[in-house]
Amino acid sequence: MNKFILKGNIIYSKNENEINFYEASYLVVKDGKSQGVYNRIPEEFINYEIIDFEDKIIMPGLVDLHIHAPQYNFRGMGLDLELLDWLNTYTFKAEAKFKDLSYAKRSYKRFVDYIRRGPNTRFAIFATLHLDPTIILMDMMEESGLVSFIGKVNMDRNGGAELEEKDADESIKTTISWLDKIKGKYKNTYPIITPRFIPSCSDELLNKLRKVKNEYKLPIQSHLSENLGEIDWVKDLVPKSDFYGEAYELFDLFGKENKTIMAHCVYSNDKEQKLMKDNGVFIAHCPDSNTNLTSGIAPAGKYLRNGQKIGLGSDIAGGVHSSIFKAMADAIKVSKLRYRLVDESIKPLSIEEAFYMATLGGGEFFGKVGSFEKDYEFDAIVIDDSYLLEEDELTLRQRLERIIYISEDRDVVSKFVRGERLF
Amino acid sequence: MNKFILKGNIIYSKNENEINFYEASYLVVKDGKSQGVYNRIPEEFINYEIIDFEDKIIMPGLVDLHIHAPQYNFRGMGLDLELLDWLNTYTFKAEAKFKDLSYAKRSYKRFVDYIRRGPNTRFAIFATLHLDPTIILMDMMEESGLVSFIGKVNMDRNGGAELEEKDADESIKTTISWLDKIKGKYKNTYPIITPRFIPSCSDELLNKLRKVKNEYKLPIQSHLSENLGEIDWVKDLVPKSDFYGEAYELFDLFGKENKTIMAHCVYSNDKEQKLMKDNGVFIAHCPDSNTNLTSGIAPAGKYLRNGQKIGLGSDIAGGVHSSIFKAMADAIKVSKLRYRLVDESIKPLSIEEAFYMATLGGGEFFGKVGSFEKDYEFDAIVIDDSYLLEEDELTLRQRLERIIYISEDRDVVSKFVRGERLF
Repeated sequence: MNKFILKGNIIYSKNENEINFYEASYLVVKDGKSQGVYNRIPEEFINYEIIDFEDKIIMPGLVDLHIHAPQYNFRGMGLDLELLDWLNTYTFKAEAKFKDLSYAKRSYKRFVDYIRRGPNTRFAIFATLHLDPTIILMDMMEESGLVSFIGKVNMDRNGGAELEEKDADESIKTTISWLDKIKGKYKNTYPIITPRFIPSCSDELLNKLRKVKNEYKLPIQSHLSENLGEIDWVKDLVPKSDFYGEAYELFDLFGKENKTIMAHCVYSNDKEQKLMKDNGVFIAHCPDSNTNLTSGIAPAGKYLRNGQKIGLGSDIAGGVHSSIFKAMADAIKVSKLRYRLVDESIKPLSIEEAFYMATLGGGEFFGKVGSFEKDYEFDAIVIDDSYLLEEDELTLRQRLERIIYISEDRDVVSKFVRGERLF
Repeated sequence: MNKFILKGNIIYSKNENEINFYEASYLVVKDGKSQGVYNRIPEEFINYEIIDFEDKIIMPGLVDLHIHAPQYNFRGMGLDLELLDWLNTYTFKAEAKFKDLSYAKRSYKRFVDYIRRGPNTRFAIFATLHLDPTIILMDMMEESGLVSFIGKVNMDRNGGAELEEKDADESIKTTISWLDKIKGKYKNTYPIITPRFIPSCSDELLNKLRKVKNEYKLPIQSHLSENLGEIDWVKDLVPKSDFYGEAYELFDLFGKENKTIMAHCVYSNDKEQKLMKDNGVFIAHCPDSNTNLTSGIAPAGKYLRNGQKIGLGSDIAGGVHSSIFKAMADAIKVSKLRYRLVDESIKPLSIEEAFYMATLGGGEFFGKVGSFEKDYEFDAIVIDDSYLLEEDELTLRQRLERIIYISEDRDVVSKFVRGERLF
């Protein structure tokens, strides 16, 4: 099936401030790419198979720019601590269990089943520092039909006895062994260089990771300016750096020719923001996690309006749910609280802005993704919101708003990734 | 069935800081009241029928201290405005439609079906200003088996052409007619005096409502100190009042012998807090609504720790979901943001505090409700969280935490109210 047409109510982001709404229209797909949306089928596509989704909503698959697969097992628990204590008390212990291959296999299977059902089609994933368990996750993600970047985590300090690589050399050796083992193995699953964060990585390790990413031409993901205690610690650990982001920049692990995602950016100062913008670093805004770990509220509206690259992240298990619909609602909510309580010069996020971040904003990390404009890779979800169509007639924009605030994973009744139908 | 025993994992609040957890225990019920929890069935109850809920969780039904039934139709929409504009643009128009009896009937049926399925068993509900539609709602609530206080709303000013009573006399006449029509009609459904809020009620109306509540010995519900613009307006409208709460107090509509719920209290100053405490006014903390309408964050932890009476409210449609589990999670989340961004002297709410507010805290408005201690009215819900019991062994406290953050209405597999099994 490489040529087909979906019929239904079609929604996609035009830009940061506008959404395209097409009632009862036709979305044409050929060779895994969109051929555009039409209110009547053009002559050239007249013999394509039509899949009729009737009154349902069709929109681009959502993009999760930041999620920790091994933390799925403890989502919704242990949220009484702030970041550094939370890592030491719960997270590192939870990730250490993935050394056990059969534990990893069972856990990752549940994780992949879970995210496959939901509205997201693209993911940037942290695995653990373990080599074979990371490959197990990559195998499962490949089999799922979803598209992902997955990183074996690098961490050679401050992980405690249970979750730390012996030294930079061992960390790099494992990383290269991992990259060589998966070479040419996958179609939809890509490796990404993943230093956990500055406190977990010695200067030597970061220096060597720079060489690996250059040799293998790989993108990078990490964490940035999430928590005030963390930021102070990074200043101590990398005294040469003027601000947290510069600690990555010193080792050339901060964007430019290697696409980079930095999660959180709750407290990025002007210099850090400028460097992210100059280097084209993607911000993964994770509002639920920043709330649950009492980190604060990132000024996502300011970033977006200033032209930063920015998408949304679930950040399981700092965040509780993988659905990026929930991340959209959370992003709007916390932007209102930040507006009211911190800085009234930054207006709350609109539905249009949240939807943009969830689709085109994060999608750009993956290439031409997150839109139904011609030549975009065809990721789509079909939402059955009939249970929300009750008494009053709703516009498509109102239906979208309700889907963002109310929908559950089970409302996703069909899902396409790169032109393949998953269900 | 007036004598029975539920078997399962039993959880209830002991006080603001402690929760009782009983694995595989027995909860004895007689004549609609709890007879306590036992790890072995005492001799005197040995011939009671046992309903075995196996590994499921049994806890008190949750209490929603503030919800607008007619706003169910537009939950999750139009959340781009602040309170006063939101009322004029969306809410009053939506409520005006309830003048049409058949519209009201269809809408309220959906509303009641919705809340019946969820985890809440007790409700303090705003209807609209319309007489017969309010009685329709009361009939349906009575039939549902849930317990509720329901108010015909009083509003004789600032409602616009569509949603305003002609004058105080008409408002009072309708109120008395309503009270007389429902006299002796219900077992589980009670009237409550419901002046919408100060901006909707003239001095004359409030004065006359005082007499009605005295004559009929009724409780009171209204809104208080939700939004800064609203507070300024109240100052203009009732120049004699030193603070918002005093505007109710001047008309003796603020607690004391008549139990009173005031929703929101986001910006209550010290005097207002003291008066609420002295008068025993219940605060309905509605975190999702206060976020969605950019109102702010009420210092719920401070209120609770200072000994104010306080429970949780969904405040549909300022809030999106009726489940008080979600209100618990939201209350914890916003308390963390308030701690981080506004006032580090008020520690975030704990799981124990949120669970207390959702059960015993709000339950007190209804009498001996919200606990399984002996002689408490028997409201219970049974939660199937088996899908959350995955890889690692969980304690009952961890299971409760996950239920608060993750559970959905469909996880409520059985529900008892005043000893009657609803499903």
